[in-house]
Amino acid sequence: MSKYLAMTQTQLTRELERLRDCYEGFKQRGLALNMARGKPSPEQLELSMPLLSIFSPASSSASSQTLSQTVPQTFSPASSLSPSPSDELLAGHPNDLRNYGTLLGLPEARALMADIMQVSAANVVVGGNSSLSLMYDLISQSVTHGVLGSQPWLSLSEPARFLCPAPGYDRHFAITEHFGIEMITVPMCADGPDMDLVERLANSDPRIKGIWCVPRFSNPTGVVYSEEVVNRMAALRPAAADFRVYWDNAYAVHSFEQTTVEGGVNTPALASIQTIAEQHGNPDIWYQFCSTSKITFAGAGIAAFATSEKNLKSIITRLGLQSIGPDKINQKRHVLFLPDICAVREHMARHAAILRPKFDAVLEELDRGLGPMGIGEWTRPQGGYFISFNGPVGTARRTVELAQGAGVVLTPAGATYPYGKDPQDANIRIAPTYPSLAELRQASQIFVVCICIAAAETLLSH
Amino acid sequence: MSKYLAMTQTQLTRELERLRDCYEGFKQRGLALNMARGKPSPEQLELSMPLLSIFSPASSSASSQTLSQTVPQTFSPASSLSPSPSDELLAGHPNDLRNYGTLLGLPEARALMADIMQVSAANVVVGGNSSLSLMYDLISQSVTHGVLGSQPWLSLSEPARFLCPAPGYDRHFAITEHFGIEMITVPMCADGPDMDLVERLANSDPRIKGIWCVPRFSNPTGVVYSEEVVNRMAALRPAAADFRVYWDNAYAVHSFEQTTVEGGVNTPALASIQTIAEQHGNPDIWYQFCSTSKITFAGAGIAAFATSEKNLKSIITRLGLQSIGPDKINQKRHVLFLPDICAVREHMARHAAILRPKFDAVLEELDRGLGPMGIGEWTRPQGGYFISFNGPVGTARRTVELAQGAGVVLTPAGATYPYGKDPQDANIRIAPTYPSLAELRQASQIFVVCICIAAAETLLSH
Repeated sequence: MSKYLAMTQTQLTRELERLRDCYEGFKQRGLALNMARGKPSPEQLELSMPLLSIFSPASSSASSQTLSQTVPQTFSPASSLSPSPSDELLAGHPNDLRNYGTLLGLPEARALMADIMQVSAANVVVGGNSSLSLMYDLISQSVTHGVLGSQPWLSLSEPARFLCPAPGYDRHFAITEHFGIEMITVPMCADGPDMDLVERLANSDPRIKGIWCVPRFSNPTGVVYSEEVVNRMAALRPAAADFRVYWDNAYAVHSFEQTTVEGGVNTPALASIQTIAEQHGNPDIWYQFCSTSKITFAGAGIAAFATSEKNLKSIITRLGLQSIGPDKINQKRHVLFLPDICAVREHMARHAAILRPKFDAVLEELDRGLGPMGIGEWTRPQGGYFISFNGPVGTARRTVELAQGAGVVLTPAGATYPYGKDPQDANIRIAPTYPSLAELRQASQIFVVCICIAAAETLLSH
Repeated sequence: MSKYLAMTQTQLTRELERLRDCYEGFKQRGLALNMARGKPSPEQLELSMPLLSIFSPASSSASSQTLSQTVPQTFSPASSLSPSPSDELLAGHPNDLRNYGTLLGLPEARALMADIMQVSAANVVVGGNSSLSLMYDLISQSVTHGVLGSQPWLSLSEPARFLCPAPGYDRHFAITEHFGIEMITVPMCADGPDMDLVERLANSDPRIKGIWCVPRFSNPTGVVYSEEVVNRMAALRPAAADFRVYWDNAYAVHSFEQTTVEGGVNTPALASIQTIAEQHGNPDIWYQFCSTSKITFAGAGIAAFATSEKNLKSIITRLGLQSIGPDKINQKRHVLFLPDICAVREHMARHAAILRPKFDAVLEELDRGLGPMGIGEWTRPQGGYFISFNGPVGTARRTVELAQGAGVVLTPAGATYPYGKDPQDANIRIAPTYPSLAELRQASQIFVVCICIAAAETLLSH
C-alpha cells in the first residue's frame, strides 16, 4: 500500500513539490536515454562476431590489416576460382548451399533449432531472419485459406477471435488487429495465463481461433509457464477445429541462471509443448516459433517454426509458392558457430553475464526508490528481455510522458495490452538490455521520480 | 513447315523407326541430365565467393589452412571483443547493422538496387533473399486489405482477374491461382505482350487487377519489351483503380552482350517503367521487383521492390507489422562486393562469358537437328535464363515424357501457361544455365530426337 495514501493533502503537496524539483534537476541534464527497446546491446552483438568470418580462409587468425587493405573495390574472378575451405562447405554440401532450394532449411539447422525448441527436427522449418514474419505468414494464411481445410477466417460471417494474455507482446497484438481479428484479453498470472478463463473461452466459442503465448520469460512479465499451465494448454478441447496455440518461444534459452557446464540445467525449465500435446492426443494444437535474433544477431539471425506433421504439410504447400528457399548460407554460418545445444548454452551464459547486472541495476533502483514508499510492483525475471512494472491505477500514461520530458524513452503505456489500451493504465514495460549500466541507473532513477509524481498527482486530483 | 508433312505414311514410319533406334541408344546410356531448372551453375556461383569472406580481417589474402584448423568448435568471446575492420563497418554504421531495424533496407543497398531497376532509391525497399516472397506478399496484402483503400480482393462478389502473358513464369501463375484469382492468357509477341488485347481488357474490366510482366529477357521467351510496349503499359487507363503492372525485372542486368567498359551499353535496353509512368501521369501503376539471385547467390542474395511513394507508404505499414527489418549484414556484403552499377556490369560480363557458350551449344544442336527438318521454332535470347521452344501442336507433353525416359528432365509441358495448360500443347521451356557444356550438347541431341519422334507419332496418328 502506497505511503502517499496515509499523507494529508498538505504533506502530499509538499512531496510533489520536492519530486518536481528533483525532476527539473534531471531535466536540465538534457539526457537521451532509452528503456523502450528489447534490443541486444552492442556488447552482446560482439559475442557473435566470429559468425561473420566463419567461411573465410583465416577465420580464426588475428590480423592487423586495416579495412582499406582488406576490402578491395573490385574482385578478381580468378582468385575466387581457386578452391577454398568454403567451397567444400558450400558447393560440396548435398545441396549446394549457394543455390536455390532446400525449402525447409538445412537439416543441420533444423536439428539445432529443434533442440532449442525441444521438438523433433522433422517438425521444424528454418526460414529467414525473422520469426515475426513466420507468425505473420501463418495468420495471413489462415485468414485467406483457413487451417487444414477450415473456412478462411476472412470469409467468416463474424470476425475470428484470439485470446491475448496481457500484459503481452505488442507485435502479436498488432498482427491480430491488422487482420481484423477480435482480441480478448486474458490476465497473466505468476505461472502463465489464467487457464480457467482460457479453457472456458476456447472450449466454448468456435470464433476463438488461437492464443498468443510467450511461454518462457514472457514479454514483458518474465513469467515462465508452469508445467500445469503447459499441460492445460496442450489439453484444450477448443470449440474451433482450427484453434491453435501460438507458442512464441522467443526466449527459449535466455535464462540468466544459465550454467556453462555441459548438462547444466536451465532454470526454470519449460515443458515441451510437442511432447505434452501428443500425450493429450492433441498433436495438431501447437505452432511453435523461435529465432536466434537474441542469440546471435537481431537483424541477421535465423528463425524457425515447428508444428505437427499434419499442420506442416499444408504450410509447406504455401511456402513452396512463396519462397525459393531460405538463406542456407546464413543457416550454415549458425550451425558452424553453434554446433549443438551445449554450444548454445555456453554462448547464452555469456549473454547472461552481460544482462544480469543490467536487470539487477534496474531492480536495485526500483527497490531503493519505490520499495520504502510502497508504490508500484514489478517482476524479477530470471531471464528474457523485460521487467514488467505496475504502477498505481491511472498513472502509466502520465509516467511515460514525464519520463519522456526528462529524456527517458519508455515503451508507450498501453502497448502491452490489445488495441494499446491498458484498462488500468498501470502497466509499463521496462527494457534494460540495450543501455549501458550507467545509463540504466540514471534512467531508473528518473523513472522512480516520474512514477512518484504521477502517483501523487493522481491522489491529489481526486 | 515440317518436312514430315511431305512424307508418305511409309516414309514417315521408316523415319520413326530410325528415330526410335536412336532413342534406344541414348536410353541405354543411363543418363541423368536436367534442362528444367533456371538455376545458376556452380561456375557462376564461384564468381561471388568473395562475398562470404568480405567481413573477415584477411578477406583478400590467400590461405592454405585447412577447414578443420579454421573453424574451431567453440569461439572465445575475448577474441571477438578486439576491434576489427568488421566492427567499424557494422557497429560503427549509423544503424548498427547487426541489430533490429532499418525496415526499408540499407540506404546503400537501396541505391544499388535502384540503379539496377532504373528507379529512384527513395522508391526502393530492399528485403530478404527472395523477390518471389515480395510478390507473394503484395498479392496477399491486396487479397486481404485491397490496394490503397480499395476493396480486399477476397471480399469481391466475383473473383479478381489477372492478365498473364504466356508463355510466362509458372511461379507467377501459381501465386495467382493460390489466391483464387482468375487468369486470362495474353499472347506474348516478339516485343512483349499483345498490347491491343491488354489495353482492351484492362481498360474495360474492373475485375482485372493486374498483369504479370518479366520485361527484360522474359521467362521463357527471352523477349525484351520494346519501348512502345513499355509506353503502352505505363499509359493504361485501367477500369480498376487497384490495377497494377507487376514488373518482375528478374533479368534486369542479365544480358549476354554486356560490355565491361564503363558506360558500356546493355543491349537491348529496357525503358524505365517509373519514368514513363510518371510521364503518362500514371505514377502509381507499377510495382517493380528484382533480386541478386542470379547475380550473386541464388539462395543468399538480396531482393528488392520499388513503387511510387504513395503505394510504398501503405506497403511499409504492412512491412512494419510483418518484419523486424531485413538482414542488413547481407545487404552490406552485397554493396561491398558490388559497390555500384559499373561493378554489377563487370560482374555480369563474367556470368555472360559462362552462359553464352551454353546457350550457343543448345541453339547449335537445335539448328543442326531440327533446322533442316523444319520442325519447331525457338527463341534466340540475348540474355536471361531460358530458350522457349514451340514444337508442332500436340507434341509438348509427349516430348517431355520421351526425354524423361531417356534421362533428360525438362520443365513439365504446360508449365509456361496459366493453370499449367498450354492450349496448343506445343511450348517447352529449355533451361541451359545449370548443366555443363558437354551435358547440354547431349541433352539437346536427345531433345531433338524426342521432338522428332513426337512429331512423327502425331502425324501418323491422324
